Parts: sequence; structure tokens; C-alpha cells
Amino acid sequence: MKNKLKVIKIGGKLIDDEARLGKFLTAFARLKGNKILIHGGGSMASRISLKLGIKPQMIMGRRITTSADIEVVTMVYAGWINKQIVARLQQHGCNAIGLSGADANAIVACRRPVTEIDYGFVGDIEKVNANLLQTLLHNGLTPVFSAITSDGNGELLNTNSDTVAAEIAVAMSKVYETRLLYCFEKKGVLQDSEDSLSVIPQLDFASYRHAVEEGVIHNGMLPKLHTGFTALKRKVSEVIIGDDTILDEETKIFTRLIL
Amino acid sequence: MKNKLKVIKIGGKLIDDEARLGKFLTAFARLKGNKILIHGGGSMASRISLKLGIKPQMIMGRRITTSADIEVVTMVYAGWINKQIVARLQQHGCNAIGLSGADANAIVACRRPVTEIDYGFVGDIEKVNANLLQTLLHNGLTPVFSAITSDGNGELLNTNSDTVAAEIAVAMSKVYETRLLYCFEKKGVLQDSEDSLSVIPQLDFASYRHAVEEGVIHNGMLPKLHTGFTALKRKVSEVIIGDDTILDEETKIFTRLIL
Repeated sequence: MKNKLKVIKIGGKLIDDEARLGKFLTAFARLKGNKILIHGGGSMASRISLKLGIKPQMIMGRRITTSADIEVVTMVYAGWINKQIVARLQQHGCNAIGLSGADANAIVACRRPVTEIDYGFVGDIEKVNANLLQTLLHNGLTPVFSAITSDGNGELLNTNSDTVAAEIAVAMSKVYETRLLYCFEKKGVLQDSEDSLSVIPQLDFASYRHAVEEGVIHNGMLPKLHTGFTALKRKVSEVIIGDDTILDEETKIFTRLIL
Repeated sequence: MKNKLKVIKIGGKLIDDEARLGKFLTAFARLKGNKILIHGGGSMASRISLKLGIKPQMIMGRRITTSADIEVVTMVYAGWINKQIVARLQQHGCNAIGLSGADANAIVACRRPVTEIDYGFVGDIEKVNANLLQTLLHNGLTPVFSAITSDGNGELLNTNSDTVAAEIAVAMSKVYETRLLYCFEKKGVLQDSEDSLSVIPQLDFASYRHAVEEGVIHNGMLPKLHTGFTALKRKVSEVIIGDDTILDEETKIFTRLIL
């Protein structure tokens, strides 16, 4: 029987909310068993960019990661936010180790190929080094990832953090019975985005496809759902979307994805 | 017989010089055997602070690390510089892993006690987790440290990078035959600070004490010499100060500290 592993992604808005972040980190530190945390960036990078006079570059309506942008997101995500989270987990007795994809070659990405748009320093994941993560877990460490990756050729790349979480969960599923938990500011996928209590308990792939075609899924939800369903298809044992209360085994309100 | 380990500190001005940093990292990646890198910060943190409108706070002529400062140095040192160095070492085939003191509880520091001056978020090192570093080295990884540490209570602290290097070398000396190499922009300790060729080949403790009393040692050299001699007394097998050529075993120009 495989050992169990929880891969937990914490989203941007939870990181900006000091009180909720604190509550989340205390609960995460307390979780028993193997666990890996992936964090988003929150709004700090935009604030710092603004102060530094770096203007967002858009091409055909898409945000481009310039060399100035990758510097800022690496500073903010892999620097301040990652080390702050690690220090606070250590405070609560969780032996966290902060990683970017570059560290120990944990995640190899490639710069997104230029088609109609050159996205700049944006990475698509090629490989997660599951052996390394297993070694760290085996030594009692809890990996904490920012979504900064590297291409193996010295270039740092900005990567979608939902995708980082899903790719880690998929890679680890070969060794562990892996659950993927997307933790954000809402209680789950909502039937009605205006009604925070309209959480869909189970969302199946056919309904998801239908909703995508209807265009009724909120933009921010699309990466979670897309990567979540892909992860399920690639043998991740369970994918759950909800707020910080999903770390509590007793919680009944969240969305479970099913195929 | 103990295994060998090189603990190498690379200083600020080398980090600011793109060509020399590249040369250093290529040479470092090529070094055989166990090695640990500690890097300083360079001038980037000051540039970013200036742009962000953060003014240096001085009390009694000493620089204070405010909460805004610790945010910037963590972003710059543990974020951009650390991850850039790691990505470039990976490019050259060195399996680097970037760490702050908070990561995996690698270095425990305490906030400097308030006496006449409250230095703010400045850390003095209490303990280096030698077992962890041994485990990483044993797994073929090369730790790369920024000089950001943590107090175990969730606080990040700015620490002198020469001290970080020396404390790591001392802690590792229990297990490894450890050499400590301080690598900066000059070829060693100079007899005459205006003459870059006046390198003192061997500096003994008595001459150092005498020079300190005479006040003839350049301020920037003091931490390297103080921590270097302390490291020698605490069983580090060799302490060398020089420029990036000291990574080359053939190099004859550098300063060796002797007791």
C-alpha cells in the first residue's frame, strides 16, 4: 500500500489576508503525515512593481512577463513570501524547506514557445523531480514551493501556481496516494458566484465541460478546474477545492472533482 | 579520516560584477567534492530601497534594519540573488539548493539584544544544523545560503554573511575537514590598501591584533578577519582570503590566516 501525501496549494487572496494566512499556516503545521505546500503570490508583486515604476506589458490582451517582472516576482514570491511562510511554519513546529523549481532541480520548465504571443519569462513544466521530494519528505522535511521555476539553462521563469501544484501531485502519485487540495478564499466552486453558500459538493468532468462551453465559469476558477481534472485523469487520487477549513478533516463544505 | 568540505563565501562587489560573477559560478560548479556557498548581497538592496523610498535609518552612526529593510533584503538576497545563483549553478551541472537560515531550520539565530542601540531585525547565530547540511551533501546537493536567518519564532533576521560562512564552517568541522574561503574583489589582505599587489601571504593572529590596535585595517576587512581567526580557533582547518582565482588549486596569490 502506498503512503499518503497531501499536496496543498494556497491562493493569492488568502496570502494577502494576514489573519487568514496565520490561521491557515497554524492548521497546515498541525497536519499529520506527508505534505507539500505550494503558494501563490498575492498582490505584493503588483504593489512593488508599481512603486518601482514597472508598467504591466500587454500583448493582444495577455500579460507579458518582462525581465523586470521576473526579477520582481522572484524577489516577492521566492524571497519574501516563501521565507515568511517557512519561518512561520518553523515557529509552529513544521520543518519547512522553501524551494523554487531551480533549487535541487526540483522542477524543470521550458520557456513558453513564441507563437502569436511571446509571453516572456513564463515557464511550462516539463518534469517534477519526485525522487528529490521523496528524499526530503523521508527526512521529515515539508517542501514549500513558490511558483518560480527554471529551464536548466540559468533562466528563471514565472509559472502558474495551480499548475505547479497539479504537476507535483501527478508526479508524486507514482509513489504516494496523493490528494490535491486547492485552498482559496471561497468555500468551493459556486453555483452562483454572488452566493457564497451555493457550493457545488461534487463537480464531474461532463458538467465542467458543459459549463466551460456555456462560458459560465469565472476566469480565476479555470486553471484550478482545468489542472484539477487533468490531475485526476493522471492518477491523483482526489482533488478538492475549498477555503482554509478544508485542512480540517471534519469539514463537509468544499467541492470535490470527479471524472 | 574525515571527508573534505569547502565552505566558500562570495562577497558583495563580486556579485555586482556580472562578468566576474559568471566566471566565479562556472569555476565553483566545476569544483570537485563537498562544497557550500554563502553569498553576500551586493548593492541591489540599496538600489531597490532607494526606488521604494525607504530611507536608511541610523542610530548613533549604526545602520538599523527596520521592518521595511528586512522585507527588501529578504526579497533581494533570499529571492532574486539566491535563485539566480542557484539557476546558474544548475546550468553548469552543479546541483545547488538555495537556503535561508529559516529553511529546514538550517541556522537558528536570535535577534540582537537591545543595549544602547536597537539594531532592529538583525540576527546573531545560535546554531547551525550540521546534520541537515550533511544529509543534503550526502544526497549530492550543494547548499547555497543567503545571509537571511530566522529566530524560530517566525521572525526573519538579517545576518552578516561573513559570520554565516564562518559559523557554517565551524559547525561542519565536527564532521568534515573544513576549509573556509572568503572570496571577494581583491587578491587578499593588502599591506597597502592602495597597492593591489601588496598581498600578505600569511597573516598571523598576533599581527592581526596589532594591526587592529593600530587601526590600520580597512573596515570592510574586519568581519572577515575577526570571523576567520575565530573559525581557526574553533577547529576549521584552513582559512583563506582572496579573489575568485582562489577556487583554482594552482593559484598562489591569497592570504592565509594562521594562529
